[in-house]
Amino acid sequence: MIQTPYLLFLGDAPDQLAAKVARGIRDWRPDNCVGQFRMEGCNADIGLPDMTLAQARSAGARTLVVGVANRGGVISAAWKKVLVMALEEGFDLASGLHNLLRDEPDLAAVAKATGRALHDVRVPEVAYPIANGLKRTGKRCLAVGTDCSVGKMYTSLAMDKEMKARGLKSSFRATGQTGILITGDGVPLDAVVADFIAGAVEWLTPDNDADHWDHIEGQGSLFHVSYSGVTMALIHGGQPDALILSHEPTRTHMRGLPGYDLPSLEALRDTALPLARIANPAAEVVGISINTAAMAEDEALDHLAEVEARMGLATVDPFRQGAGRLVDALSGL
Amino acid sequence: MIQTPYLLFLGDAPDQLAAKVARGIRDWRPDNCVGQFRMEGCNADIGLPDMTLAQARSAGARTLVVGVANRGGVISAAWKKVLVMALEEGFDLASGLHNLLRDEPDLAAVAKATGRALHDVRVPEVAYPIANGLKRTGKRCLAVGTDCSVGKMYTSLAMDKEMKARGLKSSFRATGQTGILITGDGVPLDAVVADFIAGAVEWLTPDNDADHWDHIEGQGSLFHVSYSGVTMALIHGGQPDALILSHEPTRTHMRGLPGYDLPSLEALRDTALPLARIANPAAEVVGISINTAAMAEDEALDHLAEVEARMGLATVDPFRQGAGRLVDALSGL
Repeated sequence: MIQTPYLLFLGDAPDQLAAKVARGIRDWRPDNCVGQFRMEGCNADIGLPDMTLAQARSAGARTLVVGVANRGGVISAAWKKVLVMALEEGFDLASGLHNLLRDEPDLAAVAKATGRALHDVRVPEVAYPIANGLKRTGKRCLAVGTDCSVGKMYTSLAMDKEMKARGLKSSFRATGQTGILITGDGVPLDAVVADFIAGAVEWLTPDNDADHWDHIEGQGSLFHVSYSGVTMALIHGGQPDALILSHEPTRTHMRGLPGYDLPSLEALRDTALPLARIANPAAEVVGISINTAAMAEDEALDHLAEVEARMGLATVDPFRQGAGRLVDALSGL
Repeated sequence: MIQTPYLLFLGDAPDQLAAKVARGIRDWRPDNCVGQFRMEGCNADIGLPDMTLAQARSAGARTLVVGVANRGGVISAAWKKVLVMALEEGFDLASGLHNLLRDEPDLAAVAKATGRALHDVRVPEVAYPIANGLKRTGKRCLAVGTDCSVGKMYTSLAMDKEMKARGLKSSFRATGQTGILITGDGVPLDAVVADFIAGAVEWLTPDNDADHWDHIEGQGSLFHVSYSGVTMALIHGGQPDALILSHEPTRTHMRGLPGYDLPSLEALRDTALPLARIANPAAEVVGISINTAAMAEDEALDHLAEVEARMGLATVDPFRQGAGRLVDALSGL
């Protein structure tokens, strides 16, 4: 569990896109963020107050979160200087970089000397159990995609936010690096050993109040041959009551697999639902989330209406329209 | 790659069942075995010549394989004495035990001093790639089960043996501990990190001659919520041309999951085949392998005939009848 609130480290981000993780945290958990830390030459700005390490500590920040994709895949000497100072100032550090904080001898030594924590959210820190398949109390919703990176995390975060705004009981359950940094907790599912993937999802979504919903961050796709095993484990370990179908309509082939066509939403529904019913016979497909970022507004709305008529399910782009209708679709389950 | 031939260590096995791994190696790869090593009080006998370490070395043995399930989950002091002597005599050691050879400081030290290898086949030794989904040359057959432990490995080994006996090109591709010890090579799939499971299966079954068949050892079941992710990765990483359905007809619920019924063979076929066609549009279900060990001969033969009539596919118990008809079913693919 990463201690909040955060100071978000943007480093020397060359552009806004490089600070995508920081922006995600600010968008979804603004209460967790006291400010941003920008180095000389930083071209990103996520609209939080610029703070020094000391100012942020005074404002209550407990963890410096690396919210920027690094250049060249390494933690640079310039970054390192700030990270070491942050440990000395009393911050924990958190990062989703491939270059692990713990693998840097100086960071490891200073963290040990100062008693601070280094959170590498790509690395599992729990000995997860093998899944037992026992029915758990509470409700669970999982977004399943026609492909990777079609907006599953965004959909789950938007549904969680909408439910909280309505005063309903809801948790976002992170299964990837960005999601874990946003919430401060979760399972880095792609790094879990095969025997324990489904068990890690069970662990992440335990018994809860009967009217509480877990919104489980999806990963991969049943139709993506590189990652379908992880998707399968999410469906069986998560034992979802509700499935949301996620899709990006302008994509021409499966991400990273040029020879592979995307499945239709019908094929996704007809594949995912029977598999979900193995773990939860009451599972239903309740709605469709479409990422229309690549479309003009008119075109997007026409497309959403066409899909809704064809599939007979609430169909929205939560970025354009919010997730209200998807949350509505959960009532009665 | 484990060096052959083997001396099979039966230790102080309390009964025949405890030496199951050794028996599997002797049954499927008799040419790899020069003898058995039994300690005082051993109640197992797999029918190989009893040998001392020195005799086995003279007979050409290069690796001492722990072919026995240990009591209490630890490598006992009595075993350790033999294992250390074996290293000193020039043997490598291989084991599928949870208690890793490499985690025993004395074994690790002696292995280092003598320059011998310790093979813990539960631990991946390769940095597997992420699956790329590219079509590979050669043919592949995968057994998929209604449940775990229904005879998938046996079926694949029997088909491989039958093909070799007919002079056809064939490899058994091991994905579990026993299979790896039998063949001396393979991938311990349940210990591979999630992102790389399908890639490990691609790595295991590379391009080959157009008329060569890989018989890939199956794991888990699409219907077993604890392990279905591994099964999914086998189906997509293995891109099988042929699927064999495997079943054990007397089982009353999924192994280790009391609340879960077994699926029908029809449900298994209708679930597995469309998923297999994502990676290989030419995939077909070609036959059925039924483990009738719990049935009397008459009952077993009636059951096999009933399933064959119902499903319209060659249906055999390879233990009773051999795998000839399953191999026949591959011709034409």
